Amino acid sequence: MKYVVLARSTARALFTGGRIYHRQFSTVTIARQLEKEATHHHGGSAFGESGSFWWRKMSSLPEIKDQHHSEEKKKEDTTTTNNNENGVVSSYWGITRPKVQREDGTEWPWNCFMPWDTYRADVSIDVKKHYVPKTFSDKVAFRSVKFLRVLSDLYFKERYGCHAMMLETIAAVPGMVGGMLLHLKSLRKFQHSGGWIKALLEEAENERMHLMTMVELVKPSWHERLLVITAQGVFFNAFFVFYLLSPKTAHRFVGYLEEEAVISYTQHLDAIVSGKVENVPAPAIAIDYWRLPKDATLKDVITVIRADEAHHRDVNHFASDIHHEGKELKEAPAPIGYH
Amino acid sequence: MKYVVLARSTARALFTGGRIYHRQFSTVTIARQLEKEATHHHGGSAFGESGSFWWRKMSSLPEIKDQHHSEEKKKEDTTTTNNNENGVVSSYWGITRPKVQREDGTEWPWNCFMPWDTYRADVSIDVKKHYVPKTFSDKVAFRSVKFLRVLSDLYFKERYGCHAMMLETIAAVPGMVGGMLLHLKSLRKFQHSGGWIKALLEEAENERMHLMTMVELVKPSWHERLLVITAQGVFFNAFFVFYLLSPKTAHRFVGYLEEEAVISYTQHLDAIVSGKVENVPAPAIAIDYWRLPKDATLKDVITVIRADEAHHRDVNHFASDIHHEGKELKEAPAPIGYH
Repeated sequence: MKYVVLARSTARALFTGGRIYHRQFSTVTIARQLEKEATHHHGGSAFGESGSFWWRKMSSLPEIKDQHHSEEKKKEDTTTTNNNENGVVSSYWGITRPKVQREDGTEWPWNCFMPWDTYRADVSIDVKKHYVPKTFSDKVAFRSVKFLRVLSDLYFKERYGCHAMMLETIAAVPGMVGGMLLHLKSLRKFQHSGGWIKALLEEAENERMHLMTMVELVKPSWHERLLVITAQGVFFNAFFVFYLLSPKTAHRFVGYLEEEAVISYTQHLDAIVSGKVENVPAPAIAIDYWRLPKDATLKDVITVIRADEAHHRDVNHFASDIHHEGKELKEAPAPIGYH
Repeated sequence: MKYVVLARSTARALFTGGRIYHRQFSTVTIARQLEKEATHHHGGSAFGESGSFWWRKMSSLPEIKDQHHSEEKKKEDTTTTNNNENGVVSSYWGITRPKVQREDGTEWPWNCFMPWDTYRADVSIDVKKHYVPKTFSDKVAFRSVKFLRVLSDLYFKERYGCHAMMLETIAAVPGMVGGMLLHLKSLRKFQHSGGWIKALLEEAENERMHLMTMVELVKPSWHERLLVITAQGVFFNAFFVFYLLSPKTAHRFVGYLEEEAVISYTQHLDAIVSGKVENVPAPAIAIDYWRLPKDATLKDVITVIRADEAHHRDVNHFASDIHHEGKELKEAPAPIGYH
């Protein structure tokens, strides 16, 4: 029943979150009722093995103050926005994010991901798996990735952290481009997506979280920032056209890109084990996102990131296979939450 | 405790789903273990008032066959893909979607959204709310929306269903463009998003689900399809540039677009009440997505869609307010799951 317990508060957040947003502002009575609910759940709800959370009591002072404030505002004039200091949060539109806490009572510090976005990476995945290029387009994808690999190795040499950081700024692009193009296609053709829009956007978000983690470990220099801006400008547009012309080859390309990422992270791990790279403590964001133990280290972080990349490798080779079989992605259910 | 119960199986799916995908293929033993789990949960987990689900027993014949099949494949050669009839589903990559069922034992029929993506629309939201344009850019946004309104009214007149359908093909674009641009910005600047990427992508997905619903009710004609393709081509690129130049005005523009959508759906409802439009039964996809009663009608569907649009209206005016206050979106927590 573990999983069932694990689930409770999570989906409660998922399903009540949206409602809370404006109920919180509709009447003070409801705010009070939520307050009761919240206390009622105090400690009651479990969140995985790594920490649980519940909606913090709505009575936390500043918020209540803002509530009354915006209540009055509403009565005065329903079209002016509340421009006090916390203007943004207690906006006239009555949109605010309910406070979320961890099991230990500390506040959930992230806005870019919620507890229900966190997961435990499956590190049992085969990191050596390789798809042998068969068709001409496979070979094109494989060769172009290998070529890019040579370039990046020349540039970064053994600066693993920096290499990883730069890699993620690129790795987070294809999923977004693919997801967006499938979204637009679904709208144009009045067709279902088979879940692939979500699957690809999840990939992009996951890669972005890798970057948010690496940034805590490596501070980019001005010339690296410049390189990222240039690289993104080129790669985004190139991949956009690439995906329009041949999604089959584009997904294969990403599959190979991820294979290289797995190789890079394996080298990174070796460097940590051999002591070439210091095994510093894991950043807080990584501990929360992957539900790592409090004393997790860089080694643990790189291990779970590598597992994520291995999952993306499989998803993209899988997507390419579907196209190779002359089918459309929507014909095969997408692997949602597969990372 | 309702919500807590409601939550159980949902997040179980969220957190175990990803794991199941490949465990299912890693060893038969684990498949058996999952099978036990599945039966163990049979009927145990509740999903809201609208129906519950559990992982269907993994022993359903075809799947098990495929498992053994791909197991052998693996032993033979770990680099060839399994191209049998069910090649796509039982791909070498071992990625497949666990079967999901409703409370009544029927299979979950959708791939484009999962039970944990469904919700009950908050129809209590004020559908008359209007943001009075203040600044010059507000007025530009307001006027341009009103101008587009005149055009669409001329074209569609009182063909409400058709109007709504076409409206959604456009309404699903801004969220995607905004979310994508914030995603790329987050990567370029090594900055957090404050959850706004997710919030805007959720908006886009929600609008797309409106379209998937309308398509069940209205079959687009060839010239409407042609119009959609042209409109998307123009609007996507225009909004892309628009958002790059002034996100403040772009969000205000969308806010007003949603205000118009609310007006259109209100007219649509009046037409249903007055009998001008037949109050047909709600399509199955709508009943599942908004957790509507089995006997829901078009009136119910239009009511919840209108509520969604009202929520998007608030989110986008809110986003524009944040920019008006000289702040960046990431400075204010995004309203995730707010629709």
